[in-house]
Amino acid sequence: MSQHCLRAVLSLVFAFGMLSVNAFEWTEKKSITVGNFKTIQGREIAQMRIGYETWGALNSERTNVVLITHYFSGTAHAAGKYSATDKSAGYWDAIIGDNKAIDTKRFFVISVDTPVNLSAYDEHVITTGPASIDPATQKHYGLAFPVLQVGDFVNAQKAVLEQLGITHLFAIAGPSGGAMQATQWAAMYPNWVSRVIAVIAPGLQLPSYSVAELGLWMEPILRDPNWNHGNYYGKQLPLDGVALALRQVTHSALSMEWEQQFGQKPIMENNLPALSLQHDFLVNGYLQTRGIERATTVDANHFLYTSRAYQLFNVADKIKIIKARFLFIPAKSDRLFPPTLSHQAAQQLKANGNEATVVEIDGGMGHLDGVFKIQLAEAEIKAFLN
Amino acid sequence: MSQHCLRAVLSLVFAFGMLSVNAFEWTEKKSITVGNFKTIQGREIAQMRIGYETWGALNSERTNVVLITHYFSGTAHAAGKYSATDKSAGYWDAIIGDNKAIDTKRFFVISVDTPVNLSAYDEHVITTGPASIDPATQKHYGLAFPVLQVGDFVNAQKAVLEQLGITHLFAIAGPSGGAMQATQWAAMYPNWVSRVIAVIAPGLQLPSYSVAELGLWMEPILRDPNWNHGNYYGKQLPLDGVALALRQVTHSALSMEWEQQFGQKPIMENNLPALSLQHDFLVNGYLQTRGIERATTVDANHFLYTSRAYQLFNVADKIKIIKARFLFIPAKSDRLFPPTLSHQAAQQLKANGNEATVVEIDGGMGHLDGVFKIQLAEAEIKAFLN
Repeated sequence: MSQHCLRAVLSLVFAFGMLSVNAFEWTEKKSITVGNFKTIQGREIAQMRIGYETWGALNSERTNVVLITHYFSGTAHAAGKYSATDKSAGYWDAIIGDNKAIDTKRFFVISVDTPVNLSAYDEHVITTGPASIDPATQKHYGLAFPVLQVGDFVNAQKAVLEQLGITHLFAIAGPSGGAMQATQWAAMYPNWVSRVIAVIAPGLQLPSYSVAELGLWMEPILRDPNWNHGNYYGKQLPLDGVALALRQVTHSALSMEWEQQFGQKPIMENNLPALSLQHDFLVNGYLQTRGIERATTVDANHFLYTSRAYQLFNVADKIKIIKARFLFIPAKSDRLFPPTLSHQAAQQLKANGNEATVVEIDGGMGHLDGVFKIQLAEAEIKAFLN
Repeated sequence: MSQHCLRAVLSLVFAFGMLSVNAFEWTEKKSITVGNFKTIQGREIAQMRIGYETWGALNSERTNVVLITHYFSGTAHAAGKYSATDKSAGYWDAIIGDNKAIDTKRFFVISVDTPVNLSAYDEHVITTGPASIDPATQKHYGLAFPVLQVGDFVNAQKAVLEQLGITHLFAIAGPSGGAMQATQWAAMYPNWVSRVIAVIAPGLQLPSYSVAELGLWMEPILRDPNWNHGNYYGKQLPLDGVALALRQVTHSALSMEWEQQFGQKPIMENNLPALSLQHDFLVNGYLQTRGIERATTVDANHFLYTSRAYQLFNVADKIKIIKARFLFIPAKSDRLFPPTLSHQAAQQLKANGNEATVVEIDGGMGHLDGVFKIQLAEAEIKAFLN
């Protein structure tokens, strides 16, 4: 073989190698558009664009599908990286991948950006909601967008799955809001769903306390003068309101023990909170900074619509329809959805004739254990999928 | 007047007081004014007016004094009624009175309105803070008022007690912020304090999580345009901010089980939250209405100053000074200061050589059990005072 020829062959090998690494390793955002999407409340959305991501390969019988449903402020980016420059992988990368608990050598894993997704301004998110252009008016929907429910999130996911020829889910797994979506799936389409992994879940309906908590998260946006009854597109955005709302979310989702690391330290050593109201504590500085950092990718109306969808979550009266087996994974220090809610739901399901088990994890981060400490339940998830 | 003579006159006054208790059962607000009150941080308040209420009679040795320290949004009105038209009695009336757990036939019970008391516009409250007139400028202090600490609340109470010739406390009892004041007393004036009843207490210092929670309560006021950096006196008051702050306080102080009575019911039957963002849930309507009702008696700056005082609470490094015996009464469903905080503090005190016991109550109202369900600990309080 000539030197020239060898080089060409090597280039080809490397190109293939790289291509296959690309295809294999980098996560890609795809999307579909559904025309005249009907909401649970009977409204119609002319063009519903829905983003999704996949990992692993669909088998020929299409029987190896695991749907990942994301949390309140999450996206379809459950695993992998979009590119080599990504600092971190998708939020459940610890359990989704080759030979991991949700093994992509065995399963075709798929996750879908919720409609009215918070992160409307994240370049990787494809969603439809108040921030979208209404084709009928060529203007942003704003509050003219219909109120959605968790059932609408489910129907958006179903549309994606059906476009891929999928009619059955080996399992659905999701944390928090994702657990609500997974449970809603089991109550709406029982023949689709064999297994539900409900992580840091509220049970079969949102407790009134959480309705109030979500209501308080919404208030800073409603009171930001820039919110302007939802008409802020092309104007000053209600970033202050969004940042405070996100600060509240983070605080609610953390544990007392985790925040204790900040003690009563001031933000700046010489600006003692004992000397002036203007001086604040480090814990507040931390939470506020986190809120501000994330606010620019979040649409205020989408925050409100997502909150409302979860406030409405209730499948308690549809329990008889549910056929799936359940694995609940609550977190011991979770203040939002304490483990007792998972135990109650498991009891209700067992009384209904369903298999349901509860495994508590204790990663010390409160509700966020369900996102950042999910590897603590690796063995139980693996066993549940066997 | 000689010291001896003063004591004789005071004895006479209190003997007369005791006699008149039977004939005149209405609780009366009294007050003292302290000139040049020095704050812990070394600032001076020219005229500190301090309101207080008493029940029962001081014995001639002045050894039967029980000080009641009130909670965050509370006042000195711990028991009794001001008049026949009062709808309800003071918040701990269930345990303060003749033959009750804190028996006014035996004890002289006294409670003091905290400086920077929230309820500055309550006709029965006498307090000094940002809403007061600075004699030097003849204007409201606003944010020029010095930041106070729990130790300053203690010193205000001490000034009242000393004016009455009292130098020792048989016991101090208080819920929540009142428990912090009681513990601060024990760490500042160990020879004064024999017994502390710390109800729904945070322990020996405010957890960072609570610093964050208080920080979030303050935000709606700071963001109300009428707040105007604390300069709203004689102008539009920041009532919206105060009402939302109070809504947050109430929500934080209630339990998941108690709020569950509202389910996911809408405020108005025909205004379904599934149909419009403008329609809200009953639980939010309830909490918001409670906030609005109370907002008119609350000064916004006083809310901020009281919050800051508690954010600074920390006597952990003064534990060696403490001599008092402690009875902790946490509430099982308390989300703000869960029972574990009382158990930790009791452990620390026992390691320090102090007597400390913990009795959990379970009235189902969360933190508010310490206010509204205190009779559940009646027997233990009675025993502790024997």
